[in-house]
Amino acid sequence: MINPPRTACTFSPPVMEARRWLDGVTFPPHRPLINVSQAAPVAPPPEALRRAVAEAALNEPQAHLYGPVLGLPDLRAEVAAQWSATYGGSIAPAEVAITSGCNQAFCAAITTLCAEGDEVILPTPWYFNHKMWLDMAGVRAVPLPAGAELLPDPDHAAALITPRTRAIVLVTPNNPGGVEYPADLTHAFYTLAKERGLALIVDETYRDFDARPGAGHDLFHDTDWADTLIQLYSFSKAYRLTGHRVGAMVASPTRLAEVEKFLDTVTICPNQLGQIAALWGMRNLGQWLAGERAEILDRRAAIHDNMPKLTGQGWRLLGCGAYFAYMAHPFAMGSHHLAQALVPEAGVLLLPGTMFRPSDDPQGARELRVAFANLDRAGIDTLFDRLAALRWPLVQTGHSA
Amino acid sequence: MINPPRTACTFSPPVMEARRWLDGVTFPPHRPLINVSQAAPVAPPPEALRRAVAEAALNEPQAHLYGPVLGLPDLRAEVAAQWSATYGGSIAPAEVAITSGCNQAFCAAITTLCAEGDEVILPTPWYFNHKMWLDMAGVRAVPLPAGAELLPDPDHAAALITPRTRAIVLVTPNNPGGVEYPADLTHAFYTLAKERGLALIVDETYRDFDARPGAGHDLFHDTDWADTLIQLYSFSKAYRLTGHRVGAMVASPTRLAEVEKFLDTVTICPNQLGQIAALWGMRNLGQWLAGERAEILDRRAAIHDNMPKLTGQGWRLLGCGAYFAYMAHPFAMGSHHLAQALVPEAGVLLLPGTMFRPSDDPQGARELRVAFANLDRAGIDTLFDRLAALRWPLVQTGHSA
Repeated sequence: MINPPRTACTFSPPVMEARRWLDGVTFPPHRPLINVSQAAPVAPPPEALRRAVAEAALNEPQAHLYGPVLGLPDLRAEVAAQWSATYGGSIAPAEVAITSGCNQAFCAAITTLCAEGDEVILPTPWYFNHKMWLDMAGVRAVPLPAGAELLPDPDHAAALITPRTRAIVLVTPNNPGGVEYPADLTHAFYTLAKERGLALIVDETYRDFDARPGAGHDLFHDTDWADTLIQLYSFSKAYRLTGHRVGAMVASPTRLAEVEKFLDTVTICPNQLGQIAALWGMRNLGQWLAGERAEILDRRAAIHDNMPKLTGQGWRLLGCGAYFAYMAHPFAMGSHHLAQALVPEAGVLLLPGTMFRPSDDPQGARELRVAFANLDRAGIDTLFDRLAALRWPLVQTGHSA
Repeated sequence: MINPPRTACTFSPPVMEARRWLDGVTFPPHRPLINVSQAAPVAPPPEALRRAVAEAALNEPQAHLYGPVLGLPDLRAEVAAQWSATYGGSIAPAEVAITSGCNQAFCAAITTLCAEGDEVILPTPWYFNHKMWLDMAGVRAVPLPAGAELLPDPDHAAALITPRTRAIVLVTPNNPGGVEYPADLTHAFYTLAKERGLALIVDETYRDFDARPGAGHDLFHDTDWADTLIQLYSFSKAYRLTGHRVGAMVASPTRLAEVEKFLDTVTICPNQLGQIAALWGMRNLGQWLAGERAEILDRRAAIHDNMPKLTGQGWRLLGCGAYFAYMAHPFAMGSHHLAQALVPEAGVLLLPGTMFRPSDDPQGARELRVAFANLDRAGIDTLFDRLAALRWPLVQTGHSA
């Protein structure tokens, strides 16, 4: 019997697919494309950081050479120190690994946890790259449908646990839902995972734009956190380093010894300049990042301010926070076709809910994700004006309205 | 039944393990450590390249932002153009993907080819990260023991093919063996793979230091090469970019669409500054690289010149080329213990053959890999003097002799 190769077991990258919807479509100067498809800063990092990277590229030989598989010791130590202060727990440098982006941290974590045929519980709507990795790893992603507030239910998760379950994954603040999981909810999942001998993977890529002051959970207060918790982080959003590929994992040294096998085999080490940029950012951009957070929280407020333009037409805001507004649209057309039609019809590129749900989940067809963080208030006003102007029937392909 | 997670199915990174052998050992100033454990340039790239990277970091916003999953279009086009000229075939930009190092290119290729339980034929001694990825992917690495000249035999390979076989992997010039596969041998493997419907993966990481003028094989002359061949390349060695993590895969656009799923999920895109460095190197460092090649070929000659110091004591040179000399040692002690003993005894760090062979292959215990490319002639002289001075019994641990 010939089984399909691993990549045939998953779908194509959603962001690249959406990018292809732009092919052949022209956008008039008075109505340029509004691209809210990807959670990515569109501006480079501050000049002082760029200068630090340039200086390292020019004058630090080590910036061009292999480094340790688990990352630069100074960066691991900086994460450990700042995390211990932020989360109010004890996190050692040996409990921190630097990865080539946060996606790689997730892939590595799963590889240390799962064998072929194992299961991982993933709240839906889910982050598509998590689902893609589980597909390619031969791991069954068990959907845990979030409730009305886009919050997953620990009791429901408990009912999904089988002898093959190895982990529960939370993303908070959530991608795509934007919702910030209450600390007691995250703790309830932690308790469940701990009691059942599972790992709890908490992806905090959007942590720095959480509206709550301080840490979003108290999991590191448990002195035994490392037996259960695997925390993932990205430097990309905080310091505008998406092009550098730097993320982190916080976990037990025992697990990181296993992670090291994966990282060594896949990329040998994280690239040095990206790590130097992340370290410089952590050491020097705290105040700047506070301003960035305030700006993104204001954009989030702008989503709420604009929402009345759409609610009268049957739109609903399901979740809003971090980089994302997750919305239900009123059209009969499914979101996958709607999202494509919005490119010529509204000059808007966003992702349909179908990209964040199992293919047999009908809810995806009703939902859209707006990665609003790249738009200023004026841009958000314009986006909502364009969506409010949509009238059925939409032309599905080809030309501008 | 609980199966072990994927990382538990493979061994720890050899280079990191060897690095730990240095812990607690001091090297007197008159006899510093000679580290020939890793195939890595120890000097940074030329200043002009560093300046180009610094300039991009400072002034090109795109250098900090996400790029296409399969790499920068200009870099893909440059590889396609230079490859077409070098190999005498037709290679299009759409047949080139840029990866986060050549290891990742291998991982991605295997993921597009194999399901759980499939088989891949790997000549031994093998490159350990290839074996590690196959272990973690649930793919059986089928050893194809190389013959006396460290050359694998296509007829032997043919006898190892089963219904589960998906690919044959060649590394030429070889790591760890150093040997350059004759073009007709590589072609014979290509013919075998093509006839049997397998992929032929050819890893040419060390291509730029091949002693032969021009291309090392003629596989791209076949207009149907993309149906069979998957070629891997690294920018790390040619332009001293090990710290940047940039490699490439040349394969059919159909396969690259599958590769895109893997790369998107694991790292989203290659980092931008590394790609900018690689592109600048390709466009501007051709003459410089020719000089680097000449220098490394001279170091290779130095290995041969020095070999008489050891042959009288029972050492044999099994293979020599690219970055590596692969040697048989005369000691009763197995190479794994010998390599550890050489740290205090000789002030030399190298890797034992056991790291490049299946655990049940007794040949590994007799072999050592010397990554000589980082040593100049004087360094190679010293290395051989130290090895020639070794006398049995060796003290296995602790203090210098």
